[in-house]
Amino acid sequence: MTYFTKRYHPPGTSPGTLIRRDKRQQTSLRILLTDYTDSEYIEQVLTEPGECAAYLQRETVTWIHVQGDAEPETMRQLGKLFGLHHLALEDVINMGQRPKMDDYKDQLFVVMSHPVIDAGDVSVRMDQLSLFNGHNFVISFHPGENDPFDLVRKRLSDHVGRIRSRGADYLLYALIDVVIDEGFPVLEWLGGEVEALEDELLDSPSKNSLRRLHQLKRTLAILRRMLWPQRDVLNSLVRGDSGLISDENMVYYRDCYDHTIQIMDLIETYRDMATGMLDVYLSSISYRLNEIMRVLTMIATIFIPLTFVVGVYGMNFGNASNPWAMPELRWYYGYPLVWLVMIVVVAGMLIYFRRKKWL
Amino acid sequence: MTYFTKRYHPPGTSPGTLIRRDKRQQTSLRILLTDYTDSEYIEQVLTEPGECAAYLQRETVTWIHVQGDAEPETMRQLGKLFGLHHLALEDVINMGQRPKMDDYKDQLFVVMSHPVIDAGDVSVRMDQLSLFNGHNFVISFHPGENDPFDLVRKRLSDHVGRIRSRGADYLLYALIDVVIDEGFPVLEWLGGEVEALEDELLDSPSKNSLRRLHQLKRTLAILRRMLWPQRDVLNSLVRGDSGLISDENMVYYRDCYDHTIQIMDLIETYRDMATGMLDVYLSSISYRLNEIMRVLTMIATIFIPLTFVVGVYGMNFGNASNPWAMPELRWYYGYPLVWLVMIVVVAGMLIYFRRKKWL
Amino acid sequence: MTYFTKRYHPPGTSPGTLIRRDKRQQTSLRILLTDYTDSEYIEQVLTEPGECAAYLQRETVTWIHVQGDAEPETMRQLGKLFGLHHLALEDVINMGQRPKMDDYKDQLFVVMSHPVIDAGDVSVRMDQLSLFNGHNFVISFHPGENDPFDLVRKRLSDHVGRIRSRGADYLLYALIDVVIDEGFPVLEWLGGEVEALEDELLDSPSKNSLRRLHQLKRTLAILRRMLWPQRDVLNSLVRGDSGLISDENMVYYRDCYDHTIQIMDLIETYRDMATGMLDVYLSSISYRLNEIMRVLTMIATIFIPLTFVVGVYGMNFGNASNPWAMPELRWYYGYPLVWLVMIVVVAGMLIYFRRKKWL
Amino acid sequence: MTYFTKRYHPPGTSPGTLIRRDKRQQTSLRILLTDYTDSEYIEQVLTEPGECAAYLQRETVTWIHVQGDAEPETMRQLGKLFGLHHLALEDVINMGQRPKMDDYKDQLFVVMSHPVIDAGDVSVRMDQLSLFNGHNFVISFHPGENDPFDLVRKRLSDHVGRIRSRGADYLLYALIDVVIDEGFPVLEWLGGEVEALEDELLDSPSKNSLRRLHQLKRTLAILRRMLWPQRDVLNSLVRGDSGLISDENMVYYRDCYDHTIQIMDLIETYRDMATGMLDVYLSSISYRLNEIMRVLTMIATIFIPLTFVVGVYGMNFGNASNPWAMPELRWYYGYPLVWLVMIVVVAGMLIYFRRKKWL
Amino acid sequence: MTYFTKRYHPPGTSPGTLIRRDKRQQTSLRILLTDYTDSEYIEQVLTEPGECAAYLQRETVTWIHVQGDAEPETMRQLGKLFGLHHLALEDVINMGQRPKMDDYKDQLFVVMSHPVIDAGDVSVRMDQLSLFNGHNFVISFHPGENDPFDLVRKRLSDHVGRIRSRGADYLLYALIDVVIDEGFPVLEWLGGEVEALEDELLDSPSKNSLRRLHQLKRTLAILRRMLWPQRDVLNSLVRGDSGLISDENMVYYRDCYDHTIQIMDLIETYRDMATGMLDVYLSSISYRLNEIMRVLTMIATIFIPLTFVVGVYGMNFGNASNPWAMPELRWYYGYPLVWLVMIVVVAGMLIYFRRKKWL
Repeated sequence: MTYFTKRYHPPGTSPGTLIRRDKRQQTSLRILLTDYTDSEYIEQVLTEPGECAAYLQRETVTWIHVQGDAEPETMRQLGKLFGLHHLALEDVINMGQRPKMDDYKDQLFVVMSHPVIDAGDVSVRMDQLSLFNGHNFVISFHPGENDPFDLVRKRLSDHVGRIRSRGADYLLYALIDVVIDEGFPVLEWLGGEVEALEDELLDSPSKNSLRRLHQLKRTLAILRRMLWPQRDVLNSLVRGDSGLISDENMVYYRDCYDHTIQIMDLIETYRDMATGMLDVYLSSISYRLNEIMRVLTMIATIFIPLTFVVGVYGMNFGNASNPWAMPELRWYYGYPLVWLVMIVVVAGMLIYFRRKKWL
Repeated sequence: MTYFTKRYHPPGTSPGTLIRRDKRQQTSLRILLTDYTDSEYIEQVLTEPGECAAYLQRETVTWIHVQGDAEPETMRQLGKLFGLHHLALEDVINMGQRPKMDDYKDQLFVVMSHPVIDAGDVSVRMDQLSLFNGHNFVISFHPGENDPFDLVRKRLSDHVGRIRSRGADYLLYALIDVVIDEGFPVLEWLGGEVEALEDELLDSPSKNSLRRLHQLKRTLAILRRMLWPQRDVLNSLVRGDSGLISDENMVYYRDCYDHTIQIMDLIETYRDMATGMLDVYLSSISYRLNEIMRVLTMIATIFIPLTFVVGVYGMNFGNASNPWAMPELRWYYGYPLVWLVMIVVVAGMLIYFRRKKWL
Repeated sequence: MTYFTKRYHPPGTSPGTLIRRDKRQQTSLRILLTDYTDSEYIEQVLTEPGECAAYLQRETVTWIHVQGDAEPETMRQLGKLFGLHHLALEDVINMGQRPKMDDYKDQLFVVMSHPVIDAGDVSVRMDQLSLFNGHNFVISFHPGENDPFDLVRKRLSDHVGRIRSRGADYLLYALIDVVIDEGFPVLEWLGGEVEALEDELLDSPSKNSLRRLHQLKRTLAILRRMLWPQRDVLNSLVRGDSGLISDENMVYYRDCYDHTIQIMDLIETYRDMATGMLDVYLSSISYRLNEIMRVLTMIATIFIPLTFVVGVYGMNFGNASNPWAMPELRWYYGYPLVWLVMIVVVAGMLIYFRRKKWL
Repeated sequence: MTYFTKRYHPPGTSPGTLIRRDKRQQTSLRILLTDYTDSEYIEQVLTEPGECAAYLQRETVTWIHVQGDAEPETMRQLGKLFGLHHLALEDVINMGQRPKMDDYKDQLFVVMSHPVIDAGDVSVRMDQLSLFNGHNFVISFHPGENDPFDLVRKRLSDHVGRIRSRGADYLLYALIDVVIDEGFPVLEWLGGEVEALEDELLDSPSKNSLRRLHQLKRTLAILRRMLWPQRDVLNSLVRGDSGLISDENMVYYRDCYDHTIQIMDLIETYRDMATGMLDVYLSSISYRLNEIMRVLTMIATIFIPLTFVVGVYGMNFGNASNPWAMPELRWYYGYPLVWLVMIVVVAGMLIYFRRKKWL
Repeated sequence: MTYFTKRYHPPGTSPGTLIRRDKRQQTSLRILLTDYTDSEYIEQVLTEPGECAAYLQRETVTWIHVQGDAEPETMRQLGKLFGLHHLALEDVINMGQRPKMDDYKDQLFVVMSHPVIDAGDVSVRMDQLSLFNGHNFVISFHPGENDPFDLVRKRLSDHVGRIRSRGADYLLYALIDVVIDEGFPVLEWLGGEVEALEDELLDSPSKNSLRRLHQLKRTLAILRRMLWPQRDVLNSLVRGDSGLISDENMVYYRDCYDHTIQIMDLIETYRDMATGMLDVYLSSISYRLNEIMRVLTMIATIFIPLTFVVGVYGMNFGNASNPWAMPELRWYYGYPLVWLVMIVVVAGMLIYFRRKKWL
């Protein structure tokens, strides 16, 4: 997961230019039209954006979902059909946008971030979901392989709850809600990661712990950067700045807003703990170094003086005729005496260590 | 205590769905009805939510307290009887909610966090208290084993103070007040923990201190996350946004708000000190390492040169006929001279150490 | 100084209950009445709160000061006489309150924190000053042994400045001003502590420095927690939210507000520096460890190879008839050669160390 | 890259004084006039500011771009021709200004920061772009060697998009947009730097990593200081405080504002990660020290006791006739026994180390 | 430079008391009167404050500058002449005030901080500048030895720019501007200090670096505390809260406000970098310790086993008749074999170290 994921045109390019800059292999494109009222329900795969023109006239809710990397040409056609602003279309193409809401009087343009777990390396991929909402239509763009809205479509076709009878603004809510609620499993998984890492750091910190911890912090930093503005988006939707959302659906948006706050709360808590964990790691390592050094010091301070003592009597001064030349060597109890001296030295050391609480 | 405690439905589920996702062993359910005016007082254990229908018509204050894990079916019945919003009911079921207040025009839905000390491992359990307040009723949900409101019920039956004559909004205050004031013993206990840990870290830091400290930080992080929003809840109650709370009871809510601020103040102070303590731990350990190394260095620097000296005269060059082959061995005062040299070396070292302030 | 100093009733107790929870030995109680106009001045020690009833009717400013731990009974009597709110009385009894101002329409209840230096262990005791201010009276409660308002009483009796002619709101100001200005000597003393500790940490950090530093941070944390809200109290007094303070006295409250800001500014600066000092301590210790290790390493790396060399010639291979068995021992210049080798080794080491900048 | 880059006059100088204080070698000066309506387009290099007087009368959009270090005299002439405020002119000369917008009723003065990568030492140069915008003219000053607006001029001459038909305020937007969008390549490059450094710190931290990291933090600090206020500039432009920007062009300014937010978001994320990286570096180094010490300790604790043992039998007590004088030397299996003892000691050590998890 | 520099009266003193508390040696006092209109200019040294009474009646701008420590008596006289508030006069005497603006309806009282470099020990002295501004007069108090306003007086007498024709509010601006702009050379110098220290810390950190760094942080902390409120002062002047400043001079105050923001920006950047530098210092030292330990460990691990080996053959088991007593000593190639073993050991170690990347 890299920090900089935004696509952009070279500075100086005319605003609203629709060109795909990166030539990554494209995912296949799939355009799905869903058209419904309380009593009717039509689902159709479009081969060409133009096909939806027929549905536009009727007083039904029309939902066009574009799954995969949309080509500039497709965008231009949809833009013309629904009267979408060229700056908004540019933002759909130049993915990696920050979540935001642009209010173009008669339509809303909403960008959301869809978090997807990439369990391999403790990271999270952020897919950009772009939504247009007009009087009786919603257009959604999602670049990934998998359509995250299957369950919504099922609720629509099964006529579950109030979804069929509440207009395009409720559909917009339902789609936003899916993407926001995807944050909960992500955070549940990350919470587990945080706890597992805490245990590892306290019990047996290894070189790898440091790498994992850093990756976790990175993931949280990116997650925060991409999810924080969602709170603002929902806040301004809830404040009812736009006339496109009816009062009776507002309670649902408020519920959604609550979820964004809960998500940010958790991210902040995790970030807090992750920051503290580096110190724990450092303390844990320092403590260990202390332990190691204590052992080394004890062994060394006990044996170094002893080695000196035995070294003394290894000297070759032992000229038997010279009374000044190591007479100890010639004493009858010389050898046991040396041992006695050494035992006394060791005992003294041990007492000293015990007083210093090193033993 | 885990970071992620929220229950949630799979993303895409219809809002207001009442299903219990986790199948933990359930605590027994107990529904207690209390109905009173200034002059009357009735207390009754309900076997079925429907039984309270009779009390609803009368102009008395009706308080229904549901102790234990409520089942979806019970919720649905209560919801229908009192006209509770399905999004609110979903929040009662999906516990682990953040404290919040939702104002549904004719009724308030309040979620509070009830902190309970789990002294075993320096942690605090957060139980969710859910409250509905209408014109003349209060419904409360608490998932734990123990009913925290026994004292309130006693004040009601004993007619202590103003509680019987001040309506449902005063009852709501009394319940919220209990849960908030439970924060004080929790913080008193945590304050003791902080102080004990401080002493331990400064006097004799051990490996276990680190673990305790981390647990403390974790507890404070979770406590803060769950209690901070209570301040906001009480603030918006005090601002009088809702028409359900009378002006004469407002002074009590203001008192309650003061308590939430005092609690947050204490938590922030503890967090501050806990953050600083890791540095204290690290410094304490580093200081100790210094002490250990100083001893090792002194012993080593004193004896290593001496060992070299005695090593020199352990060499077997002592060919008596060769004047270049260690003539020292054959000097009359050779051996005492070696000792003199060594004593001078040691004395020099000691003077050096004293100047360096290592002794 | 402990973190948690608030007294509180068990959760669930009826609000406004006046019971003394802690049974600490009580300080003696002393009730002092001061009654004055521009021309008159009466001072009287009351044996019973009831005695002040006579003074209440007259259009003079009546100041009742209660020094020492007030008993619930005294509180109740005063409450009845002056019409004080029972929640406010509870806050006077349950000391350890956060500074705050409660506006009960016709009277103000102000809680302030009075910092007192406890030089023994670098800490500050916070006494709670509780003030009631009505149309023509001020009631003050202070729990300590010493009356902090002697100077104010002297100004009153000596008719110094404008104090006698400006009403009860000016008296309230005068009392608040004393308590706030007590912050300056406290901060001057703490500033000296901070500077002394800085010098100690940079020059000769000891184990005790760490303890002193931590105590300093603790004191600052508590000071901040108790003095920060005073700023808010004075701000809301200055904003003139209450009608009890006349416009002409407002300039004095503004001056007081300025002082609270200066105090908070200093506390923040101290906290900032104290936080940085732990890093200084750690750096100082690490630097010292470096010094120690450099000496050890030098001594060890110089002598360990030498010891090896002399060890070689201490081996007993010296069979004179075997040309492969340590012929060096039998060379004429063998011994001086060994010394030459050793001198070269040491010289090489020293050059290496100098290049590494260890010498 | 230095922190302090602002040019200033000595304190006390009269405001609006136009003197060049630093006498750095000047870049060559080039004044370029562009004059256009929807149908006409004129481009001309001016040798003297006065030459543009003719274009001023006509109802065309006149854009004067001054590339390079403008001399005070040139400034004065332009100031007189277009009625520019002398304080604004002083800010153009005294480069190193913070981005800001000054609204002089009939004209806007905008200062922006143009970031240019200086890949050599991981740093970014900030060039000051100064813009004046009046009813039908834009004057731009850029001190660097290279004109950043070539692409805009090309769009003008090629009549790309709406640029020719939308007035001077759209031109202002186009110029600001170029400078802001220059932030994206800079941040893309810095993002790569951050990631490369992260890998280096985790894998093989060297002395140089520390230097690079510090340089990165410095760059981010300066970048933040210079780009943060651009957000405020665009915010106040978007709020429409000035009457010089038409409503229909506002959507473009809003797009620009979004970009400044995205840029600040990224800078904050990088800063966050860079701050954490120092701890990673420290942890990484500490971990390594641990590894090193473990090896040293193992080798030392194994061999130091052994060396003592062999030292014992190197002593010259071996007087064969004295039964107390090292009889071991004379035992038949003495030598193999010593080896046995040593092997047992080593084995014990290894078991101990394995239990301590050092092996 | 000490943290606590405020002078204050003992708590409880009557507000507005004019007594000099500290009896430091006083700087000489000098009162300078400047009186001018567009056409006239008078400069006069006053021996007595009373002398200026004559100038007060006339419709000229009168500027009285008091250089040096003013005595209470002088203050009292000036106070009476110009009707200055006694609380303001107290603030002039009790120096060390926080910058602030008090608006006494018909006159402004402004306190500013004048930073002066004290290059000796990397610190900055803050002199208090007190200013009174009425309808047609300005009174300024500056306690230092040197008059900072010589250049302003020169502009007045030389009739430079607009200063003579713009009234007392422009004069007030000119004085404030001088003091604020004095911040730029101070910050330029500090910026150099920061950069020099960065280089020192990265290249060759010494014990002294730590001291210098701490002094730098201290200076920045005090600078920030004293300059931050200047921003607020200028902000409220710019907001035009007071009627004493004319609209046409407002643009100059706005320019001044910009400067305070630039200054705060720089201080924040320096503080940020200074905070990071302690970590750099610590990392730098840790890295060095690593280096030292690596060398020690290498030398020790290479030679300790070798010393053991040669120790083995220094044992006196060599009884030629016992086949178990060190037969190696008697082997023909025993000695070269020992060397071979030792060379193999060293080679193995070196390979191990190279794999560990210690070489």
